[in-house]
Amino acid sequence: MADGRAARGRFIVVEGGDGSGKGGVIEALSARLTAADHDLLVTREPGGTDEGLKLRELLLSAEGAVWDQGAELLLMTAARIQHVKRVIAPALAAGRIVLCDRFVGSTLAYQGAGRGISESLIRGLHRDLVDDLWPDITVLLDVDPRVGLARSRARLSDAELDEGRFEDLDIGFHDRVRGGFLDQAQHDVERTLVIDAARPADQVRADAITQVLARLDLLPS
Amino acid sequence: MADGRAARGRFIVVEGGDGSGKGGVIEALSARLTAADHDLLVTREPGGTDEGLKLRELLLSAEGAVWDQGAELLLMTAARIQHVKRVIAPALAAGRIVLCDRFVGSTLAYQGAGRGISESLIRGLHRDLVDDLWPDITVLLDVDPRVGLARSRARLSDAELDEGRFEDLDIGFHDRVRGGFLDQAQHDVERTLVIDAARPADQVRADAITQVLARLDLLPS
Repeated sequence: MADGRAARGRFIVVEGGDGSGKGGVIEALSARLTAADHDLLVTREPGGTDEGLKLRELLLSAEGAVWDQGAELLLMTAARIQHVKRVIAPALAAGRIVLCDRFVGSTLAYQGAGRGISESLIRGLHRDLVDDLWPDITVLLDVDPRVGLARSRARLSDAELDEGRFEDLDIGFHDRVRGGFLDQAQHDVERTLVIDAARPADQVRADAITQVLARLDLLPS
Repeated sequence: MADGRAARGRFIVVEGGDGSGKGGVIEALSARLTAADHDLLVTREPGGTDEGLKLRELLLSAEGAVWDQGAELLLMTAARIQHVKRVIAPALAAGRIVLCDRFVGSTLAYQGAGRGISESLIRGLHRDLVDDLWPDITVLLDVDPRVGLARSRARLSDAELDEGRFEDLDIGFHDRVRGGFLDQAQHDVERTLVIDAARPADQVRADAITQVLARLDLLPS
């Protein structure tokens, strides 16, 4: 299709801030869709390919590499190109459902809204180099970062906390990220399910499953 | 300045196809400028920083990583961002002469003219993420690729030739690259010295030195 949406399969992306419960929702969706006999591929950004994993290592390595935020954007986009061309697009072309943990929406929220990189630059790269591929359905797990970050923190060990792994205490940044996700949802209401992720995990998962199944039924075949 | 040209130092880039003699010209220029008491920094793409070297390794690694050409463009641009922000811009700000082996002109020639990636995409990335920094002087070593490639080939060992190191026998590609360099020169006549690099090496080097010194004298201080 003209805008690069999946020609045959279905591309479902789960987005949300830290501690919004993406992992659990993906597991629940995955189990439910597999039980319904869908041919499913579960994958994640920025890994998903050998090349992407190497770039991720490079970005996270503590060997003193200090990346400019523009360079960081390009490495993440390069990983996404590999991910789309080698993994996601072939699966969609084969008619599979691809369930992906984060995609370009996270770049727009974190690098764009959060760090102030121009949204048109991010969208331009996506259009020119990532086949302008957008999800058929985005599940946005929305939660106040004060709640989400407290959850993330509770998952880390004391050692990790001491190491500074819990780096992003800048709540203003996380508020901007949340705003960035909600802006995207407003501009693509038809394809975004905004789910209140402040509720208990089992309610969030059940809600996500119900809404995704309903939306899948509505998609033109 | 508005277009990002060096505010105080001088940025000199040597460009040209394979076997055009860039290495020798840089050595000769470096010796001559140092003898004239210029404070000189000699550097090269895509290395020049730890991050750039790691990206270069990643691009060249034979471990089966197969990079899409869009991803390759982004990794090279990410290396350039690091190179400019950490090495080149600080040296220029300190009033030094920076002598660089390849820069964005090579990306426009190889990835753009050679491989067909949109020139406006390459220029847009340079504008938005690499501070729109362009050389004060570009030394373009122009030579028919049939001549340049024969020189490159003569430098490789039989073992390297057997390994396929001399990968680019596609002469059409190298003709497009040469055309890409010459196009850039035509569009930036004031700042480009086109040097006939088919001549013997000592003539090419002497010519490059004479022309660069004359051009340096003409630059506004």
